[in-house]
Amino acid sequence: MLRLNSRDPGFDKAFQRLVRDRRESDDDVARDVSLILEQVRNRGDAALAELTQRFDGHSLADDANWRIELADCREAYDNLNPELRAALELAAQRIRSYHEAQLPEDRDYTDAAGVRLGAKWRGVDAAGLYVPGGRAAYPSSLLMNAIPAKVAGVERLVVVTPTPKGKINPLVLAAAHIAGVDEIWRIGGAQAVGALAYGTQRIRPVDVVTGPGNAWVAEAKRQLYGVVGIDMVAGPSEILVIADGQNDPDWIAADLLSQAEHDPAAQSILITDDPLFADTVADRVGVELALLQTARVASESWNTHGVIIEVASLDEAPALANALAAEHVEIAVDDPQVLADAIRHAGSIFLGRMTPEAVGDYVAGPNHVLPTGRRARFASGLSVLDFMKRTSFIQLDESALHAIGPAAVALAEAEGLPAHARSVAVRLGQ
Amino acid sequence: MLRLNSRDPGFDKAFQRLVRDRRESDDDVARDVSLILEQVRNRGDAALAELTQRFDGHSLADDANWRIELADCREAYDNLNPELRAALELAAQRIRSYHEAQLPEDRDYTDAAGVRLGAKWRGVDAAGLYVPGGRAAYPSSLLMNAIPAKVAGVERLVVVTPTPKGKINPLVLAAAHIAGVDEIWRIGGAQAVGALAYGTQRIRPVDVVTGPGNAWVAEAKRQLYGVVGIDMVAGPSEILVIADGQNDPDWIAADLLSQAEHDPAAQSILITDDPLFADTVADRVGVELALLQTARVASESWNTHGVIIEVASLDEAPALANALAAEHVEIAVDDPQVLADAIRHAGSIFLGRMTPEAVGDYVAGPNHVLPTGRRARFASGLSVLDFMKRTSFIQLDESALHAIGPAAVALAEAEGLPAHARSVAVRLGQ
Repeated sequence: MLRLNSRDPGFDKAFQRLVRDRRESDDDVARDVSLILEQVRNRGDAALAELTQRFDGHSLADDANWRIELADCREAYDNLNPELRAALELAAQRIRSYHEAQLPEDRDYTDAAGVRLGAKWRGVDAAGLYVPGGRAAYPSSLLMNAIPAKVAGVERLVVVTPTPKGKINPLVLAAAHIAGVDEIWRIGGAQAVGALAYGTQRIRPVDVVTGPGNAWVAEAKRQLYGVVGIDMVAGPSEILVIADGQNDPDWIAADLLSQAEHDPAAQSILITDDPLFADTVADRVGVELALLQTARVASESWNTHGVIIEVASLDEAPALANALAAEHVEIAVDDPQVLADAIRHAGSIFLGRMTPEAVGDYVAGPNHVLPTGRRARFASGLSVLDFMKRTSFIQLDESALHAIGPAAVALAEAEGLPAHARSVAVRLGQ
Repeated sequence: MLRLNSRDPGFDKAFQRLVRDRRESDDDVARDVSLILEQVRNRGDAALAELTQRFDGHSLADDANWRIELADCREAYDNLNPELRAALELAAQRIRSYHEAQLPEDRDYTDAAGVRLGAKWRGVDAAGLYVPGGRAAYPSSLLMNAIPAKVAGVERLVVVTPTPKGKINPLVLAAAHIAGVDEIWRIGGAQAVGALAYGTQRIRPVDVVTGPGNAWVAEAKRQLYGVVGIDMVAGPSEILVIADGQNDPDWIAADLLSQAEHDPAAQSILITDDPLFADTVADRVGVELALLQTARVASESWNTHGVIIEVASLDEAPALANALAAEHVEIAVDDPQVLADAIRHAGSIFLGRMTPEAVGDYVAGPNHVLPTGRRARFASGLSVLDFMKRTSFIQLDESALHAIGPAAVALAEAEGLPAHARSVAVRLGQ
């Protein structure tokens, strides 16, 4: 864990280093991924079967091994313990209701020149959702990706998920049932993303691919951006907690660890104006780590990437937060709104002492797929818009064309595009 | 030009070939671009100066040669001939007014569980706009990119544009004046995109890069996607005209040529139910080509990529249009709305006989930066949203946390994330 103090002379330099530290593997996966994608594109299902055998130890030789049936999802849902089922249902209902209110409005109006203008939003025809296999198969991620797609009006929602050695996570199937997923394929890795984008003999292509994954999955999405729409380039998770000394140090320690347990490359940062509180939180992180089942991952993250920044006043925090542009920002003070208003760059903000980031991961309603690695400067969390597209339209009658057409002719001629000019001029009788 | 008839037995196969034909160079530019970006990242201005000398023949040895001053833009504007100035002003005003109405609304509400939820939209801090040099330096493109950025609230709008052998296009400067551009740098190519994304000694980095360019520029944007936001991966322009036999064949021929003159790789497609009309349009394209200043480009495009599809009934057109998902779709019939309602995938639709696509390029108001190469299946035209990002927020009090917190604890435990569970449970006194 790194300890910084904004009053120290070397602070600016150390903080800039922190801001620039990307924590993203620049591994040489690009070439591997590009070879895998080429194989899937050229050989389709045969390539999928080979790669799935090699990477997941799952055989696709039998036709029955390719898919998970919707009836299996229904069964997994029915077999869920009631408390968990209620929790998933509550999460789904709250996510659905938040995202329904995101649906954009169409426009259709005629302006003073008599020009009819507008835009119509529609869901994409088909979306593919990557769901990691094994331990990282989170039902909450499935809900956070699948529900916005369905709210957007996507008719065909396809899940791909690796089933290492054939193993399937029943919680994920139950979530797929709740979210209304239409197809599930037992494939993973870059090859699954390639299958979604290009299509194969068995799998029809989709228009948008979203969902979390390892470096290969992320790189496959990056390489296929433009062939399909993607949600975003995602890096390791991160939290910035801004807290005064009036917080229970145990609560804040737990918040810092809740990010750290995600990934050894995750980052938890605390900004506080109380040096004693900073010390206590650091101690409590150590104590809580000792009890934590996920201690191996969480301590590697905290030791390598954890930071506590001591500031003279919390008024300094928004500027630091804007430079970090963190995925999650918690503001644990009595009146969090003042600081929140000054934070321009953040994926999501958690206001007040009673809003641990983890409620946002599961049940609050807003999406937990958020921009990481300073991308909150320009990117937003996943929303229904990621599964929709807009078609604009224009309609002129003769009088409207006489009103604005001559300007188009003048500009087209000035740009050296005479056929553009002519297509307007002939209609004006010129 | 390819002639198809939907009644022919080979039609489906030929049409599928048309749909799959990407017309996008798979040139080996990726490696060149990646080397250029690495140079700019590592050596900044020195690399820019070398590359600008090499590719543009423009020396940056003198400090004064790096930028175009805003005063020069003002002067170019003042020196514009009055008709052209009025045309640019009309275009700017109509583009601004259409895009102002696109501004998204913030949300802030408290739901039945007592959870305060919402989202706040903000413009990015800085945006970079690529403006091609030479003949393709279109003032209309500058307006279409710069005005949405300014409407979105971008405070620092940076233009990069190559000035081959020092030559500057005054129309572009005048448009920059009208749009309120803040900085203009005389650099181009992949190196300019790299400078915008990474920043150099002279040029501060931006958050979003948009604007058209050649294959190197497009590839640089693709490679930097994630370091910055980008508008989209753009390919050659295309138009699909759906027309019955009641149109003036000269008008439709002009519309087809207005796309063709953009680029030898551009594509113009006509769908009509009138074989005689199809013949006449084909003839008129030939006649008009003979008179056209841009005949070299336009005839290469029309001969190589032009298509006329004869259908038994225009009712077949929407399905074909949806498969093509074209950038521009013109519907030249008496009642275009019926067909338009059935077209789900298109960048922009031009309704009726008096709406040539070219009015949309200049003065209608909606953006002329639109998805190409079938990307209208999932992508939208440029809008203020491309220059904005959304921060969600969540605020719970004790009672709200008691209402929804236990479900978060249950889900976190089921997902094997005990620190997540604990961050909620400690606040519930568990």
